[in-house]
Amino acid sequence: MTVAYRGTSFRGFAAQPGIRTVGGALTAALERTLRHAVELTCAGRTDAGVHAWGQVVTFSTRDGVDLPALARGLNKALGPAIVVRSACLVPEGFDARRSATGRKYRYTVLNRAVPDPFLADTTWHVAAPLDVPAMRLACDPLYGEHDFASFCRRIEGASLVRRVRAADWKTVGDDLLRFEIEASSFCQQMVRSLVGTMVEIGVGKRRAGDMADVLRARDRQMAGEVAPPHGLCLWEVSYGR
Amino acid sequence: MTVAYRGTSFRGFAAQPGIRTVGGALTAALERTLRHAVELTCAGRTDAGVHAWGQVVTFSTRDGVDLPALARGLNKALGPAIVVRSACLVPEGFDARRSATGRKYRYTVLNRAVPDPFLADTTWHVAAPLDVPAMRLACDPLYGEHDFASFCRRIEGASLVRRVRAADWKTVGDDLLRFEIEASSFCQQMVRSLVGTMVEIGVGKRRAGDMADVLRARDRQMAGEVAPPHGLCLWEVSYGR
Repeated sequence: MTVAYRGTSFRGFAAQPGIRTVGGALTAALERTLRHAVELTCAGRTDAGVHAWGQVVTFSTRDGVDLPALARGLNKALGPAIVVRSACLVPEGFDARRSATGRKYRYTVLNRAVPDPFLADTTWHVAAPLDVPAMRLACDPLYGEHDFASFCRRIEGASLVRRVRAADWKTVGDDLLRFEIEASSFCQQMVRSLVGTMVEIGVGKRRAGDMADVLRARDRQMAGEVAPPHGLCLWEVSYGR
Repeated sequence: MTVAYRGTSFRGFAAQPGIRTVGGALTAALERTLRHAVELTCAGRTDAGVHAWGQVVTFSTRDGVDLPALARGLNKALGPAIVVRSACLVPEGFDARRSATGRKYRYTVLNRAVPDPFLADTTWHVAAPLDVPAMRLACDPLYGEHDFASFCRRIEGASLVRRVRAADWKTVGDDLLRFEIEASSFCQQMVRSLVGTMVEIGVGKRRAGDMADVLRARDRQMAGEVAPPHGLCLWEVSYGR
């Protein structure tokens, strides 16, 4: 199933007993509808407050489930914060996480003096003027395969090497800035940490050239503040080669 | 001051003791900042759940208040649900409500099978396909001066005659429909009641021609269901001639 959700209402994706999470709410609704235990796999375990437009989840069920009816029933049960956008059958062995070949995230900044109540939950409001050309320049060293230790929460024994296929800032309308980044996969807090560092470049606290140095250092202390979760959205997951 | 707010978080504009309202929150923040009692007047007293982009409020204070600093301070104190977009001095005797010569409201419908978590708080999701040409036709009889008793909550002794200057449905993107209506002023529930009736025309429960009959009847029972508040937004208030 492809699932969109407003992360504001949840403590992240991963199911945790007694805590309202996207995975927990989805699993509970599926189990009530299908009347059997469900083990849910997702393409990207988003953190608390992070949104998704194109999250992908897989699970096993019996033959002959009416998928459009299942999606409609889930949307009725789940309410407006989680929406099943589509549901389809996949080959045995297909796994939302392991079969994924790419993920695209979007981070949106509202860059103007006055905030906007309608964008408060989905953008990071930065009042200081941002130097967008410098922020775009800072994207260049990210391309290709790197150890992103400077931008990720370290996990014992896990590799932080990732391959970035695309990374750029776009302006949208008068005062929205959108960072889009595509990679095979991401480590934890990577996008928000990159955005936090690039916004420090944008306000003039760092130079664009710093980005390559921080990346090379593989040292978390070198990066900027982690940007807030509510500007981030898991936009799309790809399964092609 | 021109004020935008997300109505979801409030029980309407009008201040009521012990209840979270936009007027109550604004007055409390102003009184804390200015250190004197404030009597707030607004251009349109929006109902619970209704949003505003261009609400206008007036109040009296002492000479020499630094208005940009006041607006910044209020935005910090009020949080993201209410935003002061601008503040300026007005001539003695100017009153947000009595001096206003026109109000423009927008009502937005999301018209597609699958809901959208990011639009759930600001649009009315109507899954059934809507006949937009019929809904546009239904706008014609609204133009000009009429007694809107069929579409308004009756208030003892108050006139329900209003002059509508513009009313139309626009399509925005693939699946958003927006009703814009401009009038000297509006009576309570008027826009939501008009929208509810027009959506019944859009789904084929009524014909476009019914609109003129309902208007002429001056009978609340003739109109359709009142549309939900979260699709409605007080867009703009005008003070010209």
